[in-house]
Amino acid sequence: MKILVTGAAGMIGRKLTARLATDGALNGVPIESLKLVDVAVPGLPSGAAVRVEAAAADITAPGEAGKLVAGRPHVIFHLAAVVSGEAEADFEKGYRVNLDGTRLLLEAIRAQPDYRPKLVFASSIAVFGAPFPEAIPDEFMTTPLTSYGTQKAIAELLIADYNRRGFLDGVAIRLPTIAVRPGAPNRAASGFFSSIIREPLAGHEAVLPVDESVRHWHASPRSATGFLLHAASLGRAQLSNRICLTMPGLSCTVGEQIAALRRIAGDKVAARIRREPDPTIIRIVDGWPRRFDARRAIALGFTVEKTFDEIIRVHIEDELAGKITA
Amino acid sequence: MKILVTGAAGMIGRKLTARLATDGALNGVPIESLKLVDVAVPGLPSGAAVRVEAAAADITAPGEAGKLVAGRPHVIFHLAAVVSGEAEADFEKGYRVNLDGTRLLLEAIRAQPDYRPKLVFASSIAVFGAPFPEAIPDEFMTTPLTSYGTQKAIAELLIADYNRRGFLDGVAIRLPTIAVRPGAPNRAASGFFSSIIREPLAGHEAVLPVDESVRHWHASPRSATGFLLHAASLGRAQLSNRICLTMPGLSCTVGEQIAALRRIAGDKVAARIRREPDPTIIRIVDGWPRRFDARRAIALGFTVEKTFDEIIRVHIEDELAGKITA
Repeated sequence: MKILVTGAAGMIGRKLTARLATDGALNGVPIESLKLVDVAVPGLPSGAAVRVEAAAADITAPGEAGKLVAGRPHVIFHLAAVVSGEAEADFEKGYRVNLDGTRLLLEAIRAQPDYRPKLVFASSIAVFGAPFPEAIPDEFMTTPLTSYGTQKAIAELLIADYNRRGFLDGVAIRLPTIAVRPGAPNRAASGFFSSIIREPLAGHEAVLPVDESVRHWHASPRSATGFLLHAASLGRAQLSNRICLTMPGLSCTVGEQIAALRRIAGDKVAARIRREPDPTIIRIVDGWPRRFDARRAIALGFTVEKTFDEIIRVHIEDELAGKITA
Repeated sequence: MKILVTGAAGMIGRKLTARLATDGALNGVPIESLKLVDVAVPGLPSGAAVRVEAAAADITAPGEAGKLVAGRPHVIFHLAAVVSGEAEADFEKGYRVNLDGTRLLLEAIRAQPDYRPKLVFASSIAVFGAPFPEAIPDEFMTTPLTSYGTQKAIAELLIADYNRRGFLDGVAIRLPTIAVRPGAPNRAASGFFSSIIREPLAGHEAVLPVDESVRHWHASPRSATGFLLHAASLGRAQLSNRICLTMPGLSCTVGEQIAALRRIAGDKVAARIRREPDPTIIRIVDGWPRRFDARRAIALGFTVEKTFDEIIRVHIEDELAGKITA
C-alpha cells in the first residue's frame, strides 16, 4: 500500500506519520511507501519500518497536485491547511490553500484514469457555528462563523460529490479541539485549553483567559491519529453518501480539566494556572460547540478518551516520557 | 436604486424582471435602473416603467463579473445557474458556472472599494439529500445528492462568509420546486409535477411517471418572485449570521394535485393524464424532500400558497389569461 500525507509537518501530521512509520501497516495492510509533503520539507519519523520520502510541495502551485498523485497512492491523508487564526487574518491565503488547494488535489485525482484512492480529509468542528442545541446531533447544519470553518465545510461538500461521482472514496472527519497539544504556546484562541495543562506539568505558569464554567469538546492527539487510521478503514457500504462524520470527543469544563490536573499532578502543579480574563477570547469561545451527540461515528467504531484524566495521562506518556515537573 | 439580475432570461428571471419593471420600485424604493444579463441577451419586459438595459454576459469569462458590478448596483439578484440535469451531465460546466461563476461575482464585489450591495441568491432545496425526517427542520444538514445541489450549498457557504466579513449583505433562499412552470415540457426529472397540470389545461396529454402517492414541496412562480422581492427587504438585524433560508412551500401528493385539477377544470381535463411509470424517475424522485418545517422563513414574513388549487389558479391567471381548454 502506498500512502500520501499532505500537511505532514503539522502536529497531527507528525503524530500520524510516526504511527504509520512504526506500525509499517495501515489497518493490517503492509505499507509499501509513505510520502510526506508540506510547504517545508517534513522531518522523517525516527525508526521507520517502511520506505519514507519527504518533500516540500505547495499544493496550490500549478501542476503540483498532479505530481503528488502521479504515483497513484492508495490512501491520501489530506491534512494540509492554513489554520483558523491565519485564515481569518488572511482571507485570500485561506481560500487559496484550504479551498483551491483541496479542489486542485481532487481535480488531480479525477484526472488520473482508472484511479480511485481513499481520501481521508481532516475537517473540524469549526464547520459548526452558534447558537447550538445542548448536544449537537449528527444531522445539525453547518453554519461556520469563520472563514476557516467555511473552507472546511466547502471541502466536505466537494469531497462528498467526488465520492458520489466515483472519482474517489472519501471520508471527512470533524476533529474535536485537540488537547493536550504538545509544543510551545501559540496564539490560537483555543490554545489555553492545552496550555493550562501542558505548561504547569512542565513547571511553567499558564494563563487562563476564560471562566472555569466554559465547556468544550476535546480529544487527545493519540485519539486524533486513531480517528484518521480508522477512517481509512471505512468503505462505501458503511458510509453511504454521508461521508462527513463528527468525531467523538470528551465534553468537559475548564474547571473539570483543572480538577483532573490536580488529581494527577497535585495542588502545586495546578497552582501554576493564573486567571486573567480576556474579553476577546471569552467572546470567541462563547460561539464554540460544547458537546456533540456523535452517535454515528461511535456506531462506526471510532473511540476516544472517557475522562480528562485519561487525556492528561496520554500527554504525560507520549510527550513527557512519564515525567511531571513537580 | 440600481438593480442587477443575473440569469434574467430564465423562467424565474423573466417573472422577476417583469414584476420589477411593472412596479418601478423594489420594496417601496423607486428603481433608477434595471440591468438584465444572461448568456444570451434577455428579452426586455413589456411596458417597463423604469430604464431597463439587457446584455449578454458570461460571468465566468475573465473580467466579466467586474464589469457587471462596475455600475455599483444596490441590489443584485443572482439567479444565473446551470440547471440540475445539465450540471449532473456536464461536471465541469456545472462547477465552472455554479461555483466559479458565483465566486467570481463575489470577488468582483469584494474588489470594489466602499461597496456593500444586497445580494439575493436563488438557492434550492437540492442542497438537501435523503434520508429525511418527516418534516425537514430549518437546522437540518445539507447533504446534496447532485452536483447542482453541491454547488448551491457551496455558494450558500461562500455568501454567508462574505456577508459575515462585511463584503456584502447576503441572503440565500432555497426555492421549492416551482409549479406550474410555464412553457414547453423539459427533460428535468421534476418536469411532470408541472406538466400534469399545464398540458391538460392547454388541451394536451401529459405523462405521469410516478405513483400518485408521491409527495413533494411546491410554490408557484408568482410566489418565487415574491420570495426574491421579500428577501431583498431583509436586513442584517433580521438575518444575523444565518442568511440561508428554506422558503415556505406547499406539501402535497401527486394525487392531491390531480384532485385539485379535477375540481378546477373538470374530469375531461384531468383525464388527459396518462400513467406511464418510469423506474429512473421513480428512483430519482424517491430521494427528494417531501415537506419542510420552514418556520424561520414564515416568521420573517415569506408567504406561499396554502392549497394546490391556489397554485393552479395562479397559473390560469398569469399564463392562460383565465382560459382553460375544456
